[in-house]
Amino acid sequence: MPEYRKDIILDEWVIVATERAKRPENFREEKIKVEKKPDAVCPFDSGNEQMTPPEVLRVDKDGNDVNEGSPWQIRVVPNKFPALIPNAAHLSMQYGIYMFMDGFGIHEVIIHSPEHITNISELSALQIRLLVEVYIKRLLEIKKDTRIESVIIMLNQGKEAGASLEHSHSQIFALPLNPPALMKEIYGTKRYFDQTKRCAMCDIINFELSEKKRLIFECSEFIIVQPYASRNPFETWIVPKRHCSNIENISSAEKDSFAHCLGMVVDFFYEELSEPAFNYYIHTGPLQDNVGSHYHWHFELIPKFSIKAGFEIATGIDICITTPEFTAEFMNKSGIFK
Amino acid sequence: MPEYRKDIILDEWVIVATERAKRPENFREEKIKVEKKPDAVCPFDSGNEQMTPPEVLRVDKDGNDVNEGSPWQIRVVPNKFPALIPNAAHLSMQYGIYMFMDGFGIHEVIIHSPEHITNISELSALQIRLLVEVYIKRLLEIKKDTRIESVIIMLNQGKEAGASLEHSHSQIFALPLNPPALMKEIYGTKRYFDQTKRCAMCDIINFELSEKKRLIFECSEFIIVQPYASRNPFETWIVPKRHCSNIENISSAEKDSFAHCLGMVVDFFYEELSEPAFNYYIHTGPLQDNVGSHYHWHFELIPKFSIKAGFEIATGIDICITTPEFTAEFMNKSGIFK
Repeated sequence: MPEYRKDIILDEWVIVATERAKRPENFREEKIKVEKKPDAVCPFDSGNEQMTPPEVLRVDKDGNDVNEGSPWQIRVVPNKFPALIPNAAHLSMQYGIYMFMDGFGIHEVIIHSPEHITNISELSALQIRLLVEVYIKRLLEIKKDTRIESVIIMLNQGKEAGASLEHSHSQIFALPLNPPALMKEIYGTKRYFDQTKRCAMCDIINFELSEKKRLIFECSEFIIVQPYASRNPFETWIVPKRHCSNIENISSAEKDSFAHCLGMVVDFFYEELSEPAFNYYIHTGPLQDNVGSHYHWHFELIPKFSIKAGFEIATGIDICITTPEFTAEFMNKSGIFK
Repeated sequence: MPEYRKDIILDEWVIVATERAKRPENFREEKIKVEKKPDAVCPFDSGNEQMTPPEVLRVDKDGNDVNEGSPWQIRVVPNKFPALIPNAAHLSMQYGIYMFMDGFGIHEVIIHSPEHITNISELSALQIRLLVEVYIKRLLEIKKDTRIESVIIMLNQGKEAGASLEHSHSQIFALPLNPPALMKEIYGTKRYFDQTKRCAMCDIINFELSEKKRLIFECSEFIIVQPYASRNPFETWIVPKRHCSNIENISSAEKDSFAHCLGMVVDFFYEELSEPAFNYYIHTGPLQDNVGSHYHWHFELIPKFSIKAGFEIATGIDICITTPEFTAEFMNKSGIFK
């Protein structure tokens, strides 16, 4: 029997239709495959630093900022083909009935490693911890420009997930506006708070901890969970237990735990599901104003197992072909989350 | 220079970033490719009628309803693996903090032809006209169930666009709710009307007819246009000139014109862009109430040229790597639209 489930943050229904469902382990073959050619010369490899635009940050393996020419673990560079550029005007203009503005913003690439690794799970625990540090460092730096209202930290794992270069890297986008997907969550948590005087995400944490059916992991700072109204097979969230709208307020202990959670999650997909493509991103509150105080920052990972087809595009309703209860059980059996 | 463009219906920005743009004709190679196996035995072929669930409609080549066993041009059958089912209860239930309900609704397949054709463009003009007739016929029939609030008529062309069987077919979904993507457009047109006392889509029609930069075709009943704030390369709309919220009020002359427009559009993609995968759907107003009187029904076709990656998923902002002006010029040069 297919089922509608309500996303209590967005106040939207999703459909869980398991008629065509496969067993969780069958998702190993469920991958979308696209033609792959190895990158001829990789501009992200150590030795090819001159192939990227001038770097904005270089850190060594101990996390110290170092100068050009020094050995590095992570480099942050502007995207060579940016979707947004920092020296554009931030001013909207009218064109007949329409409106447009120059593509002001920031679009940076975070190169995870000087070695040519192609999956984030190949990073060591220490390297993942350093990556989290760099995420926060860049966010705090970018936030100083008060024209920037929102920052998206994200990763495309695999060409099937939109990665144009296979060398493992994250991307940071900084926008002069709060994007619709974030605003929907912010409005949703505000509406939920007005109705209940509680945070929707805190409610989710408490309920999932008591139910344990979709819970993957718990430590003192975070939970890993599959959402009840899951839009995608194996959609996985990392959620801080402490209610906080913005990731930049993360403590050092929370950074340790978040890196530990992130490492386990990417290891699971690599080891147990044969390296599927996925996208992950951090949803964090608006930078310059306080509209998001009811918001609860979190991390979402969306594997690229299914194609969004006409129904999903036309309606905005996703059809998920597995239940999160079923996939959570499979994840728990892997023994990776500890 | 990348550019933000505002979608005036949704009141949302999209990004046009042509730094990596290809020439329109290069989209012939831009296709997402997935592994294909020909369907072993096709349940939609003439002679295999017993392989589908019992049909709900069979029409002959002249458009007459005919009985089982008679020669047919189009058959409508319930989906064998339905995402929604008609005999489910339509009643939401609480589960802790969450809510769910059985998957009540209708999910039908419209088989376009008894012959094993794999692209809708292989249908003749008369067959496309008949398909439009069947779309409206099923919509009017389904609408009689007053629990159904919304109907989505759609097509997935190609496995890359989510088609699970290659035999050309459309799908109809009937929902006991108005889906979020439709509601966003309805709220948007209402907001635009409140601000301007005009219909946003009527404004778009008038502006595009005067500007001609994104206009592909005009006849007395419809225009074909690429939207100013295009979210996808070659995104193409067919819009009725007569303001009307719901397609079921379409006149016979409008059906003729709509079929003509639809035929040209699918021919263009087949002939000029080497048969890319695409999704199309009809956005039509709510069935049972009048919240959509400011709404203007229309058809949207979204080619599957690009992968929605982490940025698009995280933000809800699409990055389009071509301008609609550039692709409209290419479409106009094809000589197909006349």
